[in-house]
Amino acid sequence: MVDLVTFGETMLRLSPPAGTRLETGGDLAAQVGGAESNVAAAADCLGVDAAWLSKLPDNPLGRRVVRALRGHGVTPAVAWDDSDAARLGTYYLEYGAAPRDTNVVYDRARSSVTTVDIAELDTDLVADAEIFHTTGITPALSDATAEATSDLLAAAGEADTLRSFDLNYRSKLWSHDEAADGYEAVLPHVDLLFAPYRDASVILGYDGDAEEVARELAEDYDLDALVVTRGADGSLAFVDGEIIEEGIYSDETVDAIGTGDAFVGGFLGELLTSDDGDLTPESVGRAQTYAAAAAAVKRTIEGDVLVSTRGEIESVIDADGDDISR
Amino acid sequence: MVDLVTFGETMLRLSPPAGTRLETGGDLAAQVGGAESNVAAAADCLGVDAAWLSKLPDNPLGRRVVRALRGHGVTPAVAWDDSDAARLGTYYLEYGAAPRDTNVVYDRARSSVTTVDIAELDTDLVADAEIFHTTGITPALSDATAEATSDLLAAAGEADTLRSFDLNYRSKLWSHDEAADGYEAVLPHVDLLFAPYRDASVILGYDGDAEEVARELAEDYDLDALVVTRGADGSLAFVDGEIIEEGIYSDETVDAIGTGDAFVGGFLGELLTSDDGDLTPESVGRAQTYAAAAAAVKRTIEGDVLVSTRGEIESVIDADGDDISR
Amino acid sequence: MVDLVTFGETMLRLSPPAGTRLETGGDLAAQVGGAESNVAAAADCLGVDAAWLSKLPDNPLGRRVVRALRGHGVTPAVAWDDSDAARLGTYYLEYGAAPRDTNVVYDRARSSVTTVDIAELDTDLVADAEIFHTTGITPALSDATAEATSDLLAAAGEADTLRSFDLNYRSKLWSHDEAADGYEAVLPHVDLLFAPYRDASVILGYDGDAEEVARELAEDYDLDALVVTRGADGSLAFVDGEIIEEGIYSDETVDAIGTGDAFVGGFLGELLTSDDGDLTPESVGRAQTYAAAAAAVKRTIEGDVLVSTRGEIESVIDADGDDISR
Amino acid sequence: MVDLVTFGETMLRLSPPAGTRLETGGDLAAQVGGAESNVAAAADCLGVDAAWLSKLPDNPLGRRVVRALRGHGVTPAVAWDDSDAARLGTYYLEYGAAPRDTNVVYDRARSSVTTVDIAELDTDLVADAEIFHTTGITPALSDATAEATSDLLAAAGEADTLRSFDLNYRSKLWSHDEAADGYEAVLPHVDLLFAPYRDASVILGYDGDAEEVARELAEDYDLDALVVTRGADGSLAFVDGEIIEEGIYSDETVDAIGTGDAFVGGFLGELLTSDDGDLTPESVGRAQTYAAAAAAVKRTIEGDVLVSTRGEIESVIDADGDDISR
Amino acid sequence: MVDLVTFGETMLRLSPPAGTRLETGGDLAAQVGGAESNVAAAADCLGVDAAWLSKLPDNPLGRRVVRALRGHGVTPAVAWDDSDAARLGTYYLEYGAAPRDTNVVYDRARSSVTTVDIAELDTDLVADAEIFHTTGITPALSDATAEATSDLLAAAGEADTLRSFDLNYRSKLWSHDEAADGYEAVLPHVDLLFAPYRDASVILGYDGDAEEVARELAEDYDLDALVVTRGADGSLAFVDGEIIEEGIYSDETVDAIGTGDAFVGGFLGELLTSDDGDLTPESVGRAQTYAAAAAAVKRTIEGDVLVSTRGEIESVIDADGDDISR
Amino acid sequence: MVDLVTFGETMLRLSPPAGTRLETGGDLAAQVGGAESNVAAAADCLGVDAAWLSKLPDNPLGRRVVRALRGHGVTPAVAWDDSDAARLGTYYLEYGAAPRDTNVVYDRARSSVTTVDIAELDTDLVADAEIFHTTGITPALSDATAEATSDLLAAAGEADTLRSFDLNYRSKLWSHDEAADGYEAVLPHVDLLFAPYRDASVILGYDGDAEEVARELAEDYDLDALVVTRGADGSLAFVDGEIIEEGIYSDETVDAIGTGDAFVGGFLGELLTSDDGDLTPESVGRAQTYAAAAAAVKRTIEGDVLVSTRGEIESVIDADGDDISR
Repeated sequence: MVDLVTFGETMLRLSPPAGTRLETGGDLAAQVGGAESNVAAAADCLGVDAAWLSKLPDNPLGRRVVRALRGHGVTPAVAWDDSDAARLGTYYLEYGAAPRDTNVVYDRARSSVTTVDIAELDTDLVADAEIFHTTGITPALSDATAEATSDLLAAAGEADTLRSFDLNYRSKLWSHDEAADGYEAVLPHVDLLFAPYRDASVILGYDGDAEEVARELAEDYDLDALVVTRGADGSLAFVDGEIIEEGIYSDETVDAIGTGDAFVGGFLGELLTSDDGDLTPESVGRAQTYAAAAAAVKRTIEGDVLVSTRGEIESVIDADGDDISR
Repeated sequence: MVDLVTFGETMLRLSPPAGTRLETGGDLAAQVGGAESNVAAAADCLGVDAAWLSKLPDNPLGRRVVRALRGHGVTPAVAWDDSDAARLGTYYLEYGAAPRDTNVVYDRARSSVTTVDIAELDTDLVADAEIFHTTGITPALSDATAEATSDLLAAAGEADTLRSFDLNYRSKLWSHDEAADGYEAVLPHVDLLFAPYRDASVILGYDGDAEEVARELAEDYDLDALVVTRGADGSLAFVDGEIIEEGIYSDETVDAIGTGDAFVGGFLGELLTSDDGDLTPESVGRAQTYAAAAAAVKRTIEGDVLVSTRGEIESVIDADGDDISR
Repeated sequence: MVDLVTFGETMLRLSPPAGTRLETGGDLAAQVGGAESNVAAAADCLGVDAAWLSKLPDNPLGRRVVRALRGHGVTPAVAWDDSDAARLGTYYLEYGAAPRDTNVVYDRARSSVTTVDIAELDTDLVADAEIFHTTGITPALSDATAEATSDLLAAAGEADTLRSFDLNYRSKLWSHDEAADGYEAVLPHVDLLFAPYRDASVILGYDGDAEEVARELAEDYDLDALVVTRGADGSLAFVDGEIIEEGIYSDETVDAIGTGDAFVGGFLGELLTSDDGDLTPESVGRAQTYAAAAAAVKRTIEGDVLVSTRGEIESVIDADGDDISR
Repeated sequence: MVDLVTFGETMLRLSPPAGTRLETGGDLAAQVGGAESNVAAAADCLGVDAAWLSKLPDNPLGRRVVRALRGHGVTPAVAWDDSDAARLGTYYLEYGAAPRDTNVVYDRARSSVTTVDIAELDTDLVADAEIFHTTGITPALSDATAEATSDLLAAAGEADTLRSFDLNYRSKLWSHDEAADGYEAVLPHVDLLFAPYRDASVILGYDGDAEEVARELAEDYDLDALVVTRGADGSLAFVDGEIIEEGIYSDETVDAIGTGDAFVGGFLGELLTSDDGDLTPESVGRAQTYAAAAAAVKRTIEGDVLVSTRGEIESVIDADGDDISR
Repeated sequence: MVDLVTFGETMLRLSPPAGTRLETGGDLAAQVGGAESNVAAAADCLGVDAAWLSKLPDNPLGRRVVRALRGHGVTPAVAWDDSDAARLGTYYLEYGAAPRDTNVVYDRARSSVTTVDIAELDTDLVADAEIFHTTGITPALSDATAEATSDLLAAAGEADTLRSFDLNYRSKLWSHDEAADGYEAVLPHVDLLFAPYRDASVILGYDGDAEEVARELAEDYDLDALVVTRGADGSLAFVDGEIIEEGIYSDETVDAIGTGDAFVGGFLGELLTSDDGDLTPESVGRAQTYAAAAAAVKRTIEGDVLVSTRGEIESVIDADGDDISR
Repeated sequence: MVDLVTFGETMLRLSPPAGTRLETGGDLAAQVGGAESNVAAAADCLGVDAAWLSKLPDNPLGRRVVRALRGHGVTPAVAWDDSDAARLGTYYLEYGAAPRDTNVVYDRARSSVTTVDIAELDTDLVADAEIFHTTGITPALSDATAEATSDLLAAAGEADTLRSFDLNYRSKLWSHDEAADGYEAVLPHVDLLFAPYRDASVILGYDGDAEEVARELAEDYDLDALVVTRGADGSLAFVDGEIIEEGIYSDETVDAIGTGDAFVGGFLGELLTSDDGDLTPESVGRAQTYAAAAAAVKRTIEGDVLVSTRGEIESVIDADGDDISR
């Protein structure tokens, strides 16, 4: 039995070495990544049994995703697509360096997961888990994924599985208006929300500072708890009427992709390990701390996925400040 | 002004190192390849000015194709697709070793070229060239590419540009019946045909040995010349009522992909260089010799594309047999 | 619940590129490998749920083994060694080319698994499985591993789990006499034996051809079935009084290490999938065929471990002989 | 017809990975680079048709330069040297890190271009272009290149092609006195000058700040316009009696080699695209802006050559400040 | 005849690329490193003939160490261990990035050097040298290495070879108490001491600032000279009653491992080259300057070992501040 | 004191991966190689102290050669060229595959060694050695190297050092006639000759089979012994009136470059180790055997240089025929 179940798309990620361009020749580093499996892998680093629901092409690329996620400690529970149209979503990542931005080229349209149906997925996993988590990327992919998201949230709700959601707005997937509509369909069925401040203000139209946004969002959607994330400014949580603020750890950056997912995975991982998923000011504060440390460690690692251990995360929190351990 | 114009799709080719699997992790070698641009690049090695018509996504991957082909001496004349759905066709190549076959996983559906329209293409290039060449892959991609193929053959016909075609059957693109229909639409508008023996017999239903197949095909479609290719058994040409046979050169194999395209490119390259495209038993025989040598050299090179020079091809033909030149 | 449980040591394998030497500089390819986990991974390729019992250092290298095996579809059930002396066994592999042999340098003495105790291992897994498998390498490692091997075979015997064993003699681990003693302690508790012909004759002193050796071994140790393997000469099985011979598939070799393990894993994988582990002339014959194909595919892959699918193994058996599938 | 023609030497550039030394073993990254082809490639990024005149050995290394430059969008118009002494200039680059300088080891003496003769070059290209550009490196290479530089400037002058020149002093090629003599031979035939402040003061002996140097240089050599570059202090242009200053963009540095060439290429590229090469305070100011952005983007890319697009350069100028675009 | 002889263990060092983890797959960069051979190699960069005493397994890994050190200019004088238990010490290095520390996993227990006996070593080398150097790592390895350290210091003392020692505390090798005992056995036989401030205070219990520690240590152990090192705060030497302070050079860091050894090697290298090993305020001050520059250059180089030249070290000291030399 | 001294040029060798072309992009593997240092390194593998005389540029590339050769066990005794014209000879190697030959592009003209003068070299080394060896490549490089060759042979002759010479004809360095003249100047001063059959017949004009050529050469130049090498047909030696024939070992080929040098190095290495350089039918026969084995092992290794041990060479001679040693 798993503690955490996530649902979403995981893609093949292809990237030329830092300092080189996609346009020019050479090998591409190939990894797999997707917000929801990233969260599951990060939670696993903290000791949580995590599974990931999705649909994959029944070909070597689909199997590559399964192999990679299993390696990261995640149990894939996938529907296999053996249709002629089966394909794995792909994205190309080009690392930036100021003043040139990191650039992502998506090639994910019509991937197998965009045809997913709730009937293909193992909903028992959701019912038996403590927490179900997905993000705003998933309903943005297709009508089918939007419907499956809705169905799985419903299944979780019936089973008293805590429903966790990260807004995670992607401008290359949907417009502001589409996203606003999508969020409004989902949010009434969410218990725990992760809301990047920018998404809450720009897409959902909440005014004010992070605290005001948090209070209003919690009230509007009757949330058990929510965490507003603000990049370098740290995070602000709201639970049981209390506000909890947390900073960030040193942010030397090897690869920024997946930092937000490591934050959520670290949060959920600690919440499940130490508090069985109970949301209290105390548990949320501690989860925020682990989340911040997990995010900081993720930034130092190439790839979408946090590779770490509870011991390492805690040594970051304890901040002993040695440079070399030998 | 270019001598040879080809039309078709060029894809990003991604392959793990020989002896490793797509399923497992690690970098992927990334190159570009497509039958028709492969032909143009091979012809360039023999000194021909060659251009390639196609449609590409207006993104770094599309520009990567342009950069790579320019590097191979080919002039890309492309329509840029800046739509949201723009994508580059991709294929994954896993090298085999007996008893495990080399495996290709296509991810090319709905690529930008599948939406091409004749109005987007520089038809003047075709009209001004000596030879226009495409293959059976192109009409198999979509209705739009089938139509554009037909339109370009018509344009070539009007301009007295020699129309060259390679059957090049791909089972992952269309069924036997679809292919037969497709070929029958194209063949009446072809002057010079390259017909793999297996495609002629299995798809088009021609019985008999290579010579019989050649004679019948030439008659049925009123071809100026045709070359039946038979893998390790060499090729057989039919022109002006004469049969010309040619063997193969030593076939040490580094990468078999693109061998047939190097054959055609070597053929057309020599035909254009030494005979301005005139099809006579003498010119065809010499072109077959260059074609065989170009194919043999291609097999020794990683990637879809022949990288060589006229001097090297001729030294293979002259077969001096030294092992190391120093 | 798993179908197959194996027990043994898995090491970090470090190898310079083919054609280069350990003595000179440069990167080392790093993988994990060990006979018993190799068997589990090969069985997984055929669709079997397989677990692997062992003891590993509680450090990044031990976790690397777990990650790698999970990636290969194997469920690691390990005791973690957090003592100061904890270490992962290592081996260095230098690929040969005639007349230079492939060379293995072991650095595995006193690895964590050499201190394993049955009390640390999940014996329920063994009791619940259909087959328990280990090899002659394991008891050769230390007194503790010899004792654990004996204990696990006893546990399997009590639970009616089929006990499978591969002689797998390693001259760098024990002398002929030590091995003979070790085998004689184990063999009375084995149901299914894999015996390289050379080990049976040189170490155990059986005379005669493979059939004679098979009949005598089966009688001496009251085996349900046994398979004598003879390298390029294929294998010979003896079950229910019947002799079944099987050849080998084409053996183009990328990496010979692990071929024997893929044979055993293919055998057990097919036996479990199609026959629930029942040993009959029919099931053994079919298992031998899958074993031979799995071994042939393994030879084409870098690393100790078979990476394949049931579909691919069956396509090798069906031998369609195409070179490229596209 | 091309807009911009440059003339100079392009070398093979060989460099060990950052953090390693030329003295120790290992692979060398191999690229091609030369100030004048770097300028052409940078201009191509902004949409200009650019050609490059030079002389290359008729061997695989010479062809490597042609392939690479064509890939960068530049049209090579080269004289092929098939003499026994033909060789490609080479340079070895070792990346520094404070307090260790980046080090260049030249092996370019007697390269094929040092024997170039105007009769071998396609002077029509120069006559038909809007701008002809070369740098102080070229006349420093040999008497023959000095003479060809002079001849090409004359040809450009006769054809009313704008003559652009970058002082680009290299201490490993000539002494201060030799350089001063060389510059004085060239400058009377230049219309647009790029003058690193340090070269103008140290080699040409101009006193005062950048503005004073600019005014005096312009007067002494009757220049249409000139740009004094000052590294991190930005650039200062003088045209039609007006002074225009421009800063730099953020300068995160992956590879500083070629930054100055990207500046010039960005300047000429924008000047040609938006203003047909007309030098006015307005056009020069805009060109300086593009030049600064092109230089900043170049610093983030490994290799001598800018790989970018007009769109990217303009997004840097518009400075939207996002970190990741997805 | 060599000027400097060092004694200690050199290991195989295996490290994944920066930004990746030991836990996950991929190649490992393999080098050799050990504090005492690092010192010898750094001294060689300054022109000193240096030898290194040790014991190595008689296998490809032992030969790899010899090849690598010879490449670094060091003369290995090793006892070869051909016992069954022979092994090379190994360490795994994972580069950190804040807030994640660089991590070292040792696998060096029971390596061949831990069985070394003075009778196996070429003590004439020590007697003929100007300086003998070892570090606190060596006696920490085993009783045998502690005894050999003591024996070699005695041999050096008898021959009037200057005895140099670096405390170099490693918490993974011995406890504070063990180290304190070990140091106290060695220090009475030392002439020149390198004492990291932290080791002197934490392990040896010296209070006060660096100057106080230096004065007390010198008095307690009757040292000719000592250098207290303080990381980013530079070093403080005490000789002939004088205190000499030296800062650090810019510390851009590619690889911090071995920085302290380069400091000592630079110190001893300059001391031997310019002053034949005589310890005076003047010679020590100059040696400190070279030491600081050598350490700064080492930080910019991947691997344990300084690769440089006297010329480069002096150009750092002269600090000309150019960025690129071409 | 060294046993063997060789004299010649060692170059930087740059090669793209097998299956790729010099013309196209990508990293180049960089090693060092030269016939005479290759011989010294091969002799070192058999336990001989070997030195190499030459002249190198005083720059990182020259130091790279010294580091690499020291790593291979050879003691470089070089004159350092600090002139402006100093350069290291370079060669580019492109691996072939039938029907495409392996190709070497030399860029070695005017390298530092071509200016060598006997006064710069340590002639005492030659006088003190047992054997002095050089090849026909050296006098072909320049008048200066021809003169130094002559001077060193004279010095060896005076000191009763055995003078060994390998014809080693290179068509890219001199014509047939130049080579014939060069050989005739050298051969009267040679004691032991290695003569590729083809060089003896084509360049020196000897008719007949290998035995006839051997007898005539020995008589014409009063040789103590000579070995005629015939590629796959093995070698034939003539000494004391006796003919000794030796075949070849299995020749799986990874890299054929340097095979002849390993033959000579293996010959000289065994001759020096077991017979102090005495030339008798018995010693020559044994040396031929070691030579053949050394050559066969070299073919399996990437790079110019044999990396092996006496133990390995003898295990090849003893031919135990195991495939994997573990």
